[in-house]
Amino acid sequence: MSWNIKEVGFDQHKIIHRGNQFLIGHLKLGVRGTLDEMRKEALVAVHLPLVYDQVGDGWREPVNAFNPLFTQVFVNGVEVGVMHQNPYEHEQNLSLKDAVMSRKSAFHIDGNDIVIESKRFVSDLEERAILVKYSVTASQPCKIEIKTGIDGDIWDIHGPHIEKVLFSEADDVLVASGVSHEKKNQITVLKSIDCDFKPVQETINKEDKGIYKLIEIDASAHQTYTVDQYIHIGVDEKDDVLKDRLHHLAYKGFDQHLKRHQQSWLKKWDIADVKIEGDEKADLSLRYSIYHLLILAPSRYDHASIPARGISGQTYKGAIFWDTEIFMLPFYLNHDLESAKKIIEYRIQGLKGALEKAKSYGFKGAFYAWESQDDGHDACTDYNVTDVFTKRLIRTYFKDKQVHISGDVVYAMMMYMKRTGDYEILHQGGLNVILEVARFYLDYGHYAISKDRFEVWDVMGPDEYHERVHNNAFTNQLVKMVFETVLNVENYFIHQKSPIFEELVRKMDFEDELKTIKEIISKVYIKEVNDDLIIEQFDGYFKLKDITKKDLFEKKLHPNEYLGGQGLAGDTKIIKQADVIAMLYLFKEKYSKQIMKANWDYYEPRTEHGSSLSASMYALTACLTDNPDYAYPLFMKSATVDLTGESKHYAGDVYIGGTHPAASGGAYMTVVHGFAGCTFSDQVSCIPHLPKSITSIRFKAHHLGKTYEICVKKDTFDIKELTK
Amino acid sequence: MSWNIKEVGFDQHKIIHRGNQFLIGHLKLGVRGTLDEMRKEALVAVHLPLVYDQVGDGWREPVNAFNPLFTQVFVNGVEVGVMHQNPYEHEQNLSLKDAVMSRKSAFHIDGNDIVIESKRFVSDLEERAILVKYSVTASQPCKIEIKTGIDGDIWDIHGPHIEKVLFSEADDVLVASGVSHEKKNQITVLKSIDCDFKPVQETINKEDKGIYKLIEIDASAHQTYTVDQYIHIGVDEKDDVLKDRLHHLAYKGFDQHLKRHQQSWLKKWDIADVKIEGDEKADLSLRYSIYHLLILAPSRYDHASIPARGISGQTYKGAIFWDTEIFMLPFYLNHDLESAKKIIEYRIQGLKGALEKAKSYGFKGAFYAWESQDDGHDACTDYNVTDVFTKRLIRTYFKDKQVHISGDVVYAMMMYMKRTGDYEILHQGGLNVILEVARFYLDYGHYAISKDRFEVWDVMGPDEYHERVHNNAFTNQLVKMVFETVLNVENYFIHQKSPIFEELVRKMDFEDELKTIKEIISKVYIKEVNDDLIIEQFDGYFKLKDITKKDLFEKKLHPNEYLGGQGLAGDTKIIKQADVIAMLYLFKEKYSKQIMKANWDYYEPRTEHGSSLSASMYALTACLTDNPDYAYPLFMKSATVDLTGESKHYAGDVYIGGTHPAASGGAYMTVVHGFAGCTFSDQVSCIPHLPKSITSIRFKAHHLGKTYEICVKKDTFDIKELTK
Repeated sequence: MSWNIKEVGFDQHKIIHRGNQFLIGHLKLGVRGTLDEMRKEALVAVHLPLVYDQVGDGWREPVNAFNPLFTQVFVNGVEVGVMHQNPYEHEQNLSLKDAVMSRKSAFHIDGNDIVIESKRFVSDLEERAILVKYSVTASQPCKIEIKTGIDGDIWDIHGPHIEKVLFSEADDVLVASGVSHEKKNQITVLKSIDCDFKPVQETINKEDKGIYKLIEIDASAHQTYTVDQYIHIGVDEKDDVLKDRLHHLAYKGFDQHLKRHQQSWLKKWDIADVKIEGDEKADLSLRYSIYHLLILAPSRYDHASIPARGISGQTYKGAIFWDTEIFMLPFYLNHDLESAKKIIEYRIQGLKGALEKAKSYGFKGAFYAWESQDDGHDACTDYNVTDVFTKRLIRTYFKDKQVHISGDVVYAMMMYMKRTGDYEILHQGGLNVILEVARFYLDYGHYAISKDRFEVWDVMGPDEYHERVHNNAFTNQLVKMVFETVLNVENYFIHQKSPIFEELVRKMDFEDELKTIKEIISKVYIKEVNDDLIIEQFDGYFKLKDITKKDLFEKKLHPNEYLGGQGLAGDTKIIKQADVIAMLYLFKEKYSKQIMKANWDYYEPRTEHGSSLSASMYALTACLTDNPDYAYPLFMKSATVDLTGESKHYAGDVYIGGTHPAASGGAYMTVVHGFAGCTFSDQVSCIPHLPKSITSIRFKAHHLGKTYEICVKKDTFDIKELTK
Repeated sequence: MSWNIKEVGFDQHKIIHRGNQFLIGHLKLGVRGTLDEMRKEALVAVHLPLVYDQVGDGWREPVNAFNPLFTQVFVNGVEVGVMHQNPYEHEQNLSLKDAVMSRKSAFHIDGNDIVIESKRFVSDLEERAILVKYSVTASQPCKIEIKTGIDGDIWDIHGPHIEKVLFSEADDVLVASGVSHEKKNQITVLKSIDCDFKPVQETINKEDKGIYKLIEIDASAHQTYTVDQYIHIGVDEKDDVLKDRLHHLAYKGFDQHLKRHQQSWLKKWDIADVKIEGDEKADLSLRYSIYHLLILAPSRYDHASIPARGISGQTYKGAIFWDTEIFMLPFYLNHDLESAKKIIEYRIQGLKGALEKAKSYGFKGAFYAWESQDDGHDACTDYNVTDVFTKRLIRTYFKDKQVHISGDVVYAMMMYMKRTGDYEILHQGGLNVILEVARFYLDYGHYAISKDRFEVWDVMGPDEYHERVHNNAFTNQLVKMVFETVLNVENYFIHQKSPIFEELVRKMDFEDELKTIKEIISKVYIKEVNDDLIIEQFDGYFKLKDITKKDLFEKKLHPNEYLGGQGLAGDTKIIKQADVIAMLYLFKEKYSKQIMKANWDYYEPRTEHGSSLSASMYALTACLTDNPDYAYPLFMKSATVDLTGESKHYAGDVYIGGTHPAASGGAYMTVVHGFAGCTFSDQVSCIPHLPKSITSIRFKAHHLGKTYEICVKKDTFDIKELTK
């Protein structure tokens, strides 16, 4: 059972990937896994998730703070570091157990062996604090100069976001501050430096774009010189609070903070860890996936949910997608109910934005943001991709046609209530969400008179390569589910003898719509299977060109060209990601194994898996159809996407790199709900589908107020209720 | 009053344009106005309209026959002609009065003045006959060789269409024959040659791709040597018929045939001519427009209507578009009722194809072909344009989304009945067309429950730059008109005490649909004007980017790049052609002058006039709003498009050149219905709107069984009924 992600050797070409791979932080502070001596070119980011800013017409994205990690070392005047010399030894490590990143690099410099080591963590207990222990050792006496401070040259995609930048120093604390453009958030980075030795000289260097301390050392051979760095990043905090916080960090010191931090992490793992026996790689990869879900837990924050690229940077505009509800929520429902609740609450708070969005398109009800920022503002633009041939923006339809997002929100809310029994959420705005989403679908969809059915035209399903389709199987199923939810919730309140539902219906002037829903619910067009048991993804899909993925890719004229819409895939059967298969998984109780299998066999060869959301849906359905060995490679693809870095870095000309928490969530779901086949209804049960290499899976999970310890083996399983 | 189109001087760059400009023929034979010595590189075409053929996956298009016009002259062994020397004198003439094209070119060859003259016409009385008088004169004695015959090297866009090609000679008749791929049409070209002198020697040259007669002359100075050429082109004609026809041509001779041909043309002009006084250029340009409509008259042919590029070649697949119903029919309704009836009958015969097309898209009823060939087969492909950057085909939506075509057909039928009083057409299949189109719209459109209205989503209006829009003002108005027509026709039959309507409704199982039409007819969504009296072209149009045409064009990276769809215009307010304005013209009785004016002022600056259909709709509405001087330049644009050659030759990478009969029709409409303001209801009347330069307009017109002579001056008009 391994807890460490270690990479040995340094590769210039993997700098960006390692930045994602060795990410640490929490939902208020992401620190990319770059090295101390790196700058913006290496995509260093001290990232402030959920603190959004827009500059001019640029995309609105979260702010990156100044970089207080920057530390440079000179040996006899020669700058030493991976950006200047090839280390003869190099390793970087992420300890999953306590979320500590460390690195060690050794260089030959004029016959002198120089070793740089550092260790950093983002305290799990403090507001926004980074603690770094940095040391240098030389094999021969030499002059060493350590330059450490705050680099103000920030990597931004659509920045610069911070203006009125000031660098200052007082009482041995380096300070960089400024304000964001849009909301004038005050961003302050404070850093104090503590040496375990007496330097020959210390000076403060205030530069154009940064402030640094220069520490000069007459180094003895084999003596290690260690510099502890205490960093606090403030967002809209007062000066005295900022100083207190920094003082608190430095006063207790690195080791004490680390100890408390480790205890906090120990608790997280106690409930969240999943142990896979028989397959060490699967075990570590899943643990790494869970690590990402743990650093992203929104439990402690209000008005927060999880961005699609987590806390790894500004890509995807730092926005929240359906990824969170459909691919991540299941993890929190099992292990962290506070986070699960925050995810639901975030959308309740986002209702206002969803109402405004629907209205802006001429529809009633709630049309949730495709890329949700703040309280539901849609950051998605009409142009998400650049044409590699003309360098012009391509009109995309993620924002205005991917209407399934509203249904995903309701689906998640229902999951939450079924798993927690917490129906209070309905009183806290949840019921409004359900009714407003139903109202939206009722207005967006329409009654096809001749066909006597309720249809939904002009949408985009999860497969984004096919734009503006009619009667997408996935979307229509969600629409029906939302209408059913309205009636189920009405029954719930009738059963409770509560007037709440009736009152809200009256208040919302929803009487006629409720009546209409009852009339048309049986007429919502749900696509039937054809003679081969296949469900057509949308009207006309079967008539598209049938081409292999290989043949399609061979037609590419540019490696990053966009395949969707008018691109190469648009008029073919090749799909970007699970669509019918995602529907079959979400609505698994409605379909037989035979149907699931037939559709899997039909759609899988036609799926690019060009989204990291895709593989897990295929893996889960493979388990449901008794094919865990088909699922296994897809599971590994999801679980290792941020370990291998083998993901798409470009959509058209737009950089879309970063971590993939939905893939992490999908990997988790595959193990617990697929391989272990764990189901939670009135009872907790399992239908084991272990792939060949796995002998057992052990984990804990909450369900309806209780906590269970579950162990699944090839043909048996054991479920034990834990006493509180 | 001028009757001649004359161009003086030869310009290599205008060869293709002259081919269109000097076009002669009729609906079974188009002869491009190229010169005797030209070959396929000059786009010579002896074109067989409505004889369609498809080769492999290429576009289905009409067949071009072998070229029997080819005639070459050698003077002392030197080839003489415009492709080899610059003529010191050159003129080309089209006599509109009798549709005779002539040319004269003079060359200096080694001090010898060589004059080539020729005159050709396509007999208006024979099946498919071309008669040519060709002569050579030298100023000094010399050896002249004339090579004339049938050039088998055919210009094709998606050919070659003729296989099993044979060249032969018998009884002094040259023959080229072969069969088309698809339908195995037998194409035969026969040519006999008659010299008015005794040649030194005559020989037959059979070449790889052609058969020729070589005529050697010992030429005296200033002696003109004339060669008459008799050509018959047979499509599926038997050998003896072919020979008889050719014999008939040669036996009577060029002059006699010409005389009869001229008499025939005299009759056409008697009823069709429009005399404009005060503005010679307008007078000639309009006459030229009418000339084109006369050569295209379908009166004598069954299963025929007028292709969008007339008989000028294979562009636009030789197919029939809405151009015919909306832009050409009005001419025939005034001047040639047999042709008008053929145009209506063509669509009745096309009903089967329209039913099949609707079915192929999952809809009931009649969805007419966007590009209609044969009996209603849609030749339109899903890929009509090539991306100039990637050379890939672009998915276009002309075929599947331009649903207004079905309404255009019904609109035309109503016009026909109102103008002729010929309601018999309803019994002859017209009623079926109306009901099937209504059925189609009822199925294509839908009931928007929350908005309580009947909407039509996912269409393309006349403005083809905006694809897949919802509630296009033009389309929705047509849909409502079709529903109204159903009810009007029902009333007509009730009034007639005829059971026909009721019987057909029963036979078609149309009872429920009729009931639904009555329920929803008042709910068809017709866009209201906004506060500025503007009608939004489609849902969301007002939110598109407002940009000037100039700024848009400056963004082009390639002169021929396609502007529609994902192209530069797609997300702007720039439209290709009249859309709301076309709707306002077609439904002028429903809108005030104020509304028309406001929309004209709003949309005109945003209209590219990238289709030759556009200018006339703006010209007509300018007249309706008392602005004939705004209309005048737009009228001239329509009337001269094939004189100046200033039209689009490319859409993306696809050649779309040829003549523009819909612009000719639009020019005609502007003069008669715009400037003269002639209206035909129970009475014939006029509201003169003469532009400054025009003092009077005189013409004849049929209406409800009578013929009128109409003269419109600045403030007065005179309408006289002619005795038969």
